[in-house]
Amino acid sequence: MKKILILGAGKSATDLIRYLLEHSQTFDWEIIVGDLDKDLAAQKVGGHPRGKAIYYNVMDADLTDQLVAQVDVVASVLPAKLHYLVAEACVKHGRHIVTPSYISAKDKAMDTDFRSKGLLFMGEMGLDPGIDHMSVMQMLGEVRHIGGKVQAIRSYTGALIAPESNTNPWQYKFTWAPMNVVLAGQGTAQYLKNGRPKYIPYNRLFELTERYEVDGIGSFDGYANRDSLSYLNKYNIADVPTFIRGTLRYSGYCEAWNAFVKLGWTNNTFPIINSDTLTYNDLLEAFLPSDSSEDRRPLDVRMADFIGTPPDSELMYRMRWLGLFDQKPIKKANATPAQILLDLLEEKWQLGTEDKDMIVMIHQFDYELHEQSFCRQSTMVMKGKDHNNTAIAATVGFPMAIMVKLILTGKVDHLSGVKMPIMKEVYEPCLKELGELGVHFQEAETSKDSSQKIQL
Amino acid sequence: MKKILILGAGKSATDLIRYLLEHSQTFDWEIIVGDLDKDLAAQKVGGHPRGKAIYYNVMDADLTDQLVAQVDVVASVLPAKLHYLVAEACVKHGRHIVTPSYISAKDKAMDTDFRSKGLLFMGEMGLDPGIDHMSVMQMLGEVRHIGGKVQAIRSYTGALIAPESNTNPWQYKFTWAPMNVVLAGQGTAQYLKNGRPKYIPYNRLFELTERYEVDGIGSFDGYANRDSLSYLNKYNIADVPTFIRGTLRYSGYCEAWNAFVKLGWTNNTFPIINSDTLTYNDLLEAFLPSDSSEDRRPLDVRMADFIGTPPDSELMYRMRWLGLFDQKPIKKANATPAQILLDLLEEKWQLGTEDKDMIVMIHQFDYELHEQSFCRQSTMVMKGKDHNNTAIAATVGFPMAIMVKLILTGKVDHLSGVKMPIMKEVYEPCLKELGELGVHFQEAETSKDSSQKIQL
Repeated sequence: MKKILILGAGKSATDLIRYLLEHSQTFDWEIIVGDLDKDLAAQKVGGHPRGKAIYYNVMDADLTDQLVAQVDVVASVLPAKLHYLVAEACVKHGRHIVTPSYISAKDKAMDTDFRSKGLLFMGEMGLDPGIDHMSVMQMLGEVRHIGGKVQAIRSYTGALIAPESNTNPWQYKFTWAPMNVVLAGQGTAQYLKNGRPKYIPYNRLFELTERYEVDGIGSFDGYANRDSLSYLNKYNIADVPTFIRGTLRYSGYCEAWNAFVKLGWTNNTFPIINSDTLTYNDLLEAFLPSDSSEDRRPLDVRMADFIGTPPDSELMYRMRWLGLFDQKPIKKANATPAQILLDLLEEKWQLGTEDKDMIVMIHQFDYELHEQSFCRQSTMVMKGKDHNNTAIAATVGFPMAIMVKLILTGKVDHLSGVKMPIMKEVYEPCLKELGELGVHFQEAETSKDSSQKIQL
Repeated sequence: MKKILILGAGKSATDLIRYLLEHSQTFDWEIIVGDLDKDLAAQKVGGHPRGKAIYYNVMDADLTDQLVAQVDVVASVLPAKLHYLVAEACVKHGRHIVTPSYISAKDKAMDTDFRSKGLLFMGEMGLDPGIDHMSVMQMLGEVRHIGGKVQAIRSYTGALIAPESNTNPWQYKFTWAPMNVVLAGQGTAQYLKNGRPKYIPYNRLFELTERYEVDGIGSFDGYANRDSLSYLNKYNIADVPTFIRGTLRYSGYCEAWNAFVKLGWTNNTFPIINSDTLTYNDLLEAFLPSDSSEDRRPLDVRMADFIGTPPDSELMYRMRWLGLFDQKPIKKANATPAQILLDLLEEKWQLGTEDKDMIVMIHQFDYELHEQSFCRQSTMVMKGKDHNNTAIAATVGFPMAIMVKLILTGKVDHLSGVKMPIMKEVYEPCLKELGELGVHFQEAETSKDSSQKIQL
C-alpha cells in the first residue's frame, strides 16, 4: 500500500482529495489529509475507509518530519511561500512532492538536492500555473510538428463567474483567495512583443488590456500576468517573437479596478490609523486630491472627475453599486487600504450557494506555414456546479491528483529535480485524463489569407 | 578626556568631524573616525593631533563592541537601517548615540533599554529630519506664547543647487545620496488637512504639489514627505487642523519627474535582463505602451503623447537634454530600471567642483489671535561654498556635533531613551549656535486682514 499526504484541506484541496479517495481502492492507496482545522480535513475525507484526517501545522517542523517520513508522496496546497518547509523534509526522507504554486526561489534552490536523490518536486501543477503550461506545450508541439513557424503565443486564463451567475455590474465574484485578487498585478509585468521585451508597471497594468471574445460566453479584457519573459527558456520558445501570459476578466472590470489602483486603495503596506472610526465615504475623501472648502460638489461627482469618466458612466455605476458613496462604516481598526477594500468587496462579491464559477483559458498561436499566416486558438471553458463544487477547485486539484497518480504508478520515475509540467510524458496523459474529467479544449483556426474559421 | 566615536566618514560626516576636531582642544576630546575606507577617514581627520582614523565595518559585531566600549558617545552616519546594531552595543556598554536618520522601528524598540540605563539615543538630529523639527518647535512655542491658535503648519525642506550654479533645465544636481533621490516618495504620503487625514499614493505624489516663492532665490514646488501624521503626537499639535511636511524642488522638476514614475523607471525591485545590450532608446521603447508596427512616429513624439505634453514643452526639453532619445548605451548588466536611470542622471546632474549647493527650509504657520488671521513664515536659505564644502553636509553635521557637545558637557543629563530634538533644552541652544554657524531663519508675517507683510 502507498501512502499520500495532502497538506491543506481548504477549497483548493476539495477535488484533489476527492479524486485520490475515489481511486484509492483501485491503486491501494491510503490518503492522510492534514489541516490546522482537523474538522475541515475530516469533512473532506467524509469517513472514507482509506482516508484519515489529522491536525497539521506547517510551523511544527517535527510534525512535518514525522508525517513526511511515513508517506510516499506529498501534495501540498499550503500557501506558496511555505512549500519549501515541506520540501526540505521530502529531501531528508526521500519523498516526492507536488504543488500548484509558482516555483519560488527557495523551491528552485533545492533542485540539486532533489536531483541528487532521484526525487521529483513538481511545482506549477494546478490551473494557472499548470494546465496553461501543459496545453501551451501540447499546442506548440502540434504546430511545430506540421512545420509551422510560431510568430506569437498569447495565453490567458480567468477564474470567473459563469454567465448564468453573472449578476452584478462588476461581472465578478470571489471564487478563490480574495486578497490575491485585491493585490493582483503589483510589481512590473514583463512580456515579449515583436522580439523585444516590454514592461508594464502596476500603475498602467489595468489600462493596457487586450479584448477577447468567446462565443456564447462573453467579452473579456486580458491584462499581462507577472513575468512572461522567464518562460521563454522554460517553454523552449526563444525563437518566438511575441509571447505573453495574461489574466482575463469580463470586460469593464479592468477599467473600473484601475480606479482603485489610481486612488491608492490596493496598498497593503501601511495602516489607516483608527480606520474603524471612519466610513468608506471618509476614506474616499481622504484619498481624493481635492477637499478645498470651496469644493462643494458631491463625492461621486468628484470621484468621476478624478477618474476622468462621466458621472453617469458604467464605471461610476459599478462604484455606486459597491456603496462607496454611502455612509457605510469601516469595520476593521488600523487596517490597510487593501484590507478595507477587501472587506467591502467580500460582502458585495460573495459567491451565492447556487452560483456557478467558470474557468476560461485561451491560447492564441500565430504561425506561418508554406508562406501563409495562420491563427490557431484553443479555448477551454469549464463551469462549476455550485459554490462548493467549483471549476477552480477542479482545475487546480485534478492536475495535482493525476500527477500524484503518475508518480505512484511509476510512470515518471526518470524525472527528478524541481520541475514544472512541460514534458510530454506528463502533459500528454494529464491533458487526456483532464479531458475525460470535463476539462476540454476546443481548437479553431483561421488563415489570414482566407479569413475563414476552421473548427479543428 | 572624553572620547567620541564617529562611524562613517562620507560626505555627511565632513562638518561633523570638522566641528568636533575644532572644539577638541577646548573641551579635551579625542575623536575616533571609523570607516570601511580607512584612507577616507584619515583624509577627513587631516592629521589632527586629537583625531584618529580607523578601519570600521558595522558587520563586525566584535569590533563594534570593542570600539563602543572605549568611548563616551557615538555619532553614527551609517546607513539608517544599521544604526540599531551600534545602538545595541551602546546599551551594553552604557554609551549615548546620536544619528541624523529617521528613528526606525528597531531603534524605537530600544527605548526602554536606553531609558532604564539613563542613556540617550538622539535620532533625527540632522537637517530633515533635525533642524526642521527644532525650528518648527521653536516657532510653535513663540506663536503659542503670544496666545495664537495655530490653524496650519506647513514645513518644507529642499536640498538644492544655488541659483548661481543652477545651470541645467532640471534645475537639479546631486548634492546628496543620489539613489535616495531616485527612490524618493515610494509608498503613500500622509498628512492632515482641515482636521482630516489625507493620503497620496506614489503614483500621484509628484502631481499634487504646492508652489512656494522665495524672494531673490526662486520658485519651488513642494511634494508631501512620508508620514506627517505620525508627528502630530510627537510635536504635541493634535489641536492643529492642517499639518504637512514636504520636500522642495525648483519648479518644473516634479512635473518632469512624474513622467519617470508613470513610465515605471523608478522601480528598484527587478532586473532588466541583459540591460547592457540595450540603449536608453531601447529601454524607453520597452516601457512605452505602443510599439505597433504602424506607429512610425519618432520616439520623443510618442513619449510626449504618453506624458500628455506638447512635443516642444519644457518637460520634453528636459527629457531631450538627458539624452533619452539618443542611442546612448546602458552600462550596467541586469540592472533595475532605477539603477539604469541613476546612471544617466549621475552623469547629467553631477555637481561641478565650483558648484554651490543650497538648502531651503520654509515653515508656514497660519494662526488666529484676537479674532485676526495671521500667516507667519520662517525661511532658511543656506548656500555651500563648493562641491566639497556643501550646505547639506553642514546642516546635517552641525546639529549632530552640537548634540554631542551638549551630551559631553552635561547639559542634557536628564534626558534618556530614544528621542528626537523637540525639547526646548535641546533646540534652543542648538538653533542659537546654528545661527552663529550661518544657519539663519528669517521670519515674516502677514495679517490676512491687512495683507501687509511685516519682517519680524
